[in-house]
Amino acid sequence: VQGLRHDLSAIVGDEGMPSESELATYCHDATIQRGLRGRADAVVRPADARQVARVLAYCYEQQIALVPRGGGTGLAGGATPVVGGVVCSLERLRSVLEIQPALWRMRVQAGLTTAAVHRLARENGLYFAPDPGASELSQIGGNAATNAGGPHAFKYGSTGDLVSELEVVLAPGEIAHFGSGAVKDACGYDLRGLLVGSEGTLGVITELTLRLLPAPPRRLAMVLFLEDRGAAQRLLLEILASGLRPAVLDFVDGKAFAAAAGTFPASPHAEIGMALLLELDGLDGQVQSERAEIESLAAQHQALEVVCPPARPLWRWRDGLSLAISAQRGGKISEDVAVPPERLDQAIGAIYALGESYDLPACTWGHAGDGIVHATFMIEPSCASQLERALAASEEVFDLAHELGGTITGEHGVGWTKRAAFQRHTAKAALRAQRQIKDALDPKGLLNPHKNCPLENS
Amino acid sequence: VQGLRHDLSAIVGDEGMPSESELATYCHDATIQRGLRGRADAVVRPADARQVARVLAYCYEQQIALVPRGGGTGLAGGATPVVGGVVCSLERLRSVLEIQPALWRMRVQAGLTTAAVHRLARENGLYFAPDPGASELSQIGGNAATNAGGPHAFKYGSTGDLVSELEVVLAPGEIAHFGSGAVKDACGYDLRGLLVGSEGTLGVITELTLRLLPAPPRRLAMVLFLEDRGAAQRLLLEILASGLRPAVLDFVDGKAFAAAAGTFPASPHAEIGMALLLELDGLDGQVQSERAEIESLAAQHQALEVVCPPARPLWRWRDGLSLAISAQRGGKISEDVAVPPERLDQAIGAIYALGESYDLPACTWGHAGDGIVHATFMIEPSCASQLERALAASEEVFDLAHELGGTITGEHGVGWTKRAAFQRHTAKAALRAQRQIKDALDPKGLLNPHKNCPLENS
Repeated sequence: VQGLRHDLSAIVGDEGMPSESELATYCHDATIQRGLRGRADAVVRPADARQVARVLAYCYEQQIALVPRGGGTGLAGGATPVVGGVVCSLERLRSVLEIQPALWRMRVQAGLTTAAVHRLARENGLYFAPDPGASELSQIGGNAATNAGGPHAFKYGSTGDLVSELEVVLAPGEIAHFGSGAVKDACGYDLRGLLVGSEGTLGVITELTLRLLPAPPRRLAMVLFLEDRGAAQRLLLEILASGLRPAVLDFVDGKAFAAAAGTFPASPHAEIGMALLLELDGLDGQVQSERAEIESLAAQHQALEVVCPPARPLWRWRDGLSLAISAQRGGKISEDVAVPPERLDQAIGAIYALGESYDLPACTWGHAGDGIVHATFMIEPSCASQLERALAASEEVFDLAHELGGTITGEHGVGWTKRAAFQRHTAKAALRAQRQIKDALDPKGLLNPHKNCPLENS
Repeated sequence: VQGLRHDLSAIVGDEGMPSESELATYCHDATIQRGLRGRADAVVRPADARQVARVLAYCYEQQIALVPRGGGTGLAGGATPVVGGVVCSLERLRSVLEIQPALWRMRVQAGLTTAAVHRLARENGLYFAPDPGASELSQIGGNAATNAGGPHAFKYGSTGDLVSELEVVLAPGEIAHFGSGAVKDACGYDLRGLLVGSEGTLGVITELTLRLLPAPPRRLAMVLFLEDRGAAQRLLLEILASGLRPAVLDFVDGKAFAAAAGTFPASPHAEIGMALLLELDGLDGQVQSERAEIESLAAQHQALEVVCPPARPLWRWRDGLSLAISAQRGGKISEDVAVPPERLDQAIGAIYALGESYDLPACTWGHAGDGIVHATFMIEPSCASQLERALAASEEVFDLAHELGGTITGEHGVGWTKRAAFQRHTAKAALRAQRQIKDALDPKGLLNPHKNCPLENS
């Protein structure tokens, strides 16, 4: 290990080598909640893509695993060094290389935080829509590597949809560029798209060109409270069928809402089965006509109440929901399955039933328009049996999502924690193609090993 | 060859083997215009995906090339059997397997025509937006394999953006499924996305689940005529910056317009430098307010005239533009480069200059909002020197698009005709990754060989 660190410091310099006391923070991501902690033989913080390439070349030569790391906010263990090796943190690659406000483009390094991207866009009258949680910590490169979403991904797409060009370090240590300045590009295989969501298992994203949007002149947040979940499901489908396209179409079930009702930025309410959280955006007249239509649909579906709180406090509240729910018992296991939107109610009902059968309080929230359900079982972290039951219940949630025609992960990725479910719910021919892609771009299997792939080689 | 045909007929039956007199039509696509014709050792028309898999297995065993074929309307030679082998036409896979109008989904076989998809959607109150030309002939599977676009792809995306699930026959002869019923799916590598646009070089698409949209209640077509191309460029950027999102934002330059002015579905006009063709869609009030805004922007940029012809005749006219331009001299060479939208004017000016230096009339039209330029040189088909000059000019157009930060192909794909440009304008590391993907999924190199890949192995 001393030799390894010595060799690496020759590449990245002293500044690129964290001190001994810092190492532990690089050995886990947000799954530390469930006790998932790895072990790194070394941690490097390269200063640029060339250093990343040299680090990867070294690892490839020495047959050492390399685990790329963004902000460490992932929810599937994707950045956790589960088998040792070298953690490669992108945190020093945080330059803004180019902003072209009139052309709604920004070229940045991978380590820039998501919040910084949002701020820069805003300061230039523009808008970068994807808004996964923990934006002050999470990095834009990690967002692309996991194709992170968030509430506003409903209308505007996930991170990958807004990345037009990528600089990537590929094995065995080369810098490549994918994509172009054109809006549509039909040249060759879509490697830009393939790298998006690949969780650092095919290459290390070092630079991105982002597609910004003109900031919508008007935004209006709406919350529709419903007593009955079935009515909420019907209302959701009517909103989708109406041709309206809200920027956000989230849901929070009654149990999740109760956990954070005290800080909700509007008047308190009777007990609800579900709240739909919307944001309308666009020109003022358009937003007003859409609001009227949503209100009319809500009335037809027996909404208890419709409120329009200011948008930013609402989304801050929404962003804090996960923490408020954790606070109920001290911890939770929460997975991000996705189902066809018409099966949302059915999925939620089944998740409640699982909570009962595993004797754990369950709740759900998520992106209703995309059918993404954060299926959550609340636990006391000190109780090993609760954790075990919650993990078992989560595996059943994966099975459920698959049965309903959905997927085991709508936005958080497979990472390390969903490998078993990935294997269980992917047919053999598709698994083999997945493996072929991995072997083609990472023939030695050293790029973030065991992540975003089935349990065993297949 | 007799033995080969005998073996294949054992798989696909007599109905699956075209007669001798039919074979020639399977040996070219729309690049026959420029004299590109291949040679097939056999042509098969399998009845289902299982037969496709058996044909591919046979070809893999016998080391024979397999060229998948949709409607044969491609503009890059992608379906032309350039090195012989077996042409596999998907035309008999034309079943509609499932329509769920309330859920805006349709599952169809790959050989269904694009026009049939449009009609089925319309009959169910829905809308399938991608509208490449020749929709009565082109097939939805081919549209996905080439990620075909068309005018309405500006707002709604290309074919691949609306394909949620694919059934694909992979080498060495296996049926796989990619994607799920979820709107967003973060499970594993995006093989659905990788197969989209792969031009039959990684697998044969046999079935697709399409994402339909609610039909917009109101559509309004607008044509903005401008004298000056520079003013048109500035107007384009203002429309993009306004946050308006027309369904279509096409352009037709003055020379292309002149070729079809006689059949234009509105009153005739003074000489123009450029026409912008828009379609607004949505709720009535929204369309009207957007129309007012577009009119005001047009007035600010000295538009000569703004007309609102009925939408369907306008898009029929637009669809016939390519033929009208061919009719000028009997033939043309037209390539679909794409540039960043702010460089459209610059690209067009340079294309005109190339026309002059090669002594060929040039014109352009395309998808202004996406920066896609159909760079066209008109030729007399009987004149070999004109064809040669047009092809040389086109290679310079590819170089130009690359220099302007764009791509050699915005929507038609690399196929066979753009291999040299693909190689010239792709860096070594990216080319190698392209090759690794091809080798991984088609280790014997028998799936549509030499297409969508550089001239030589790299």
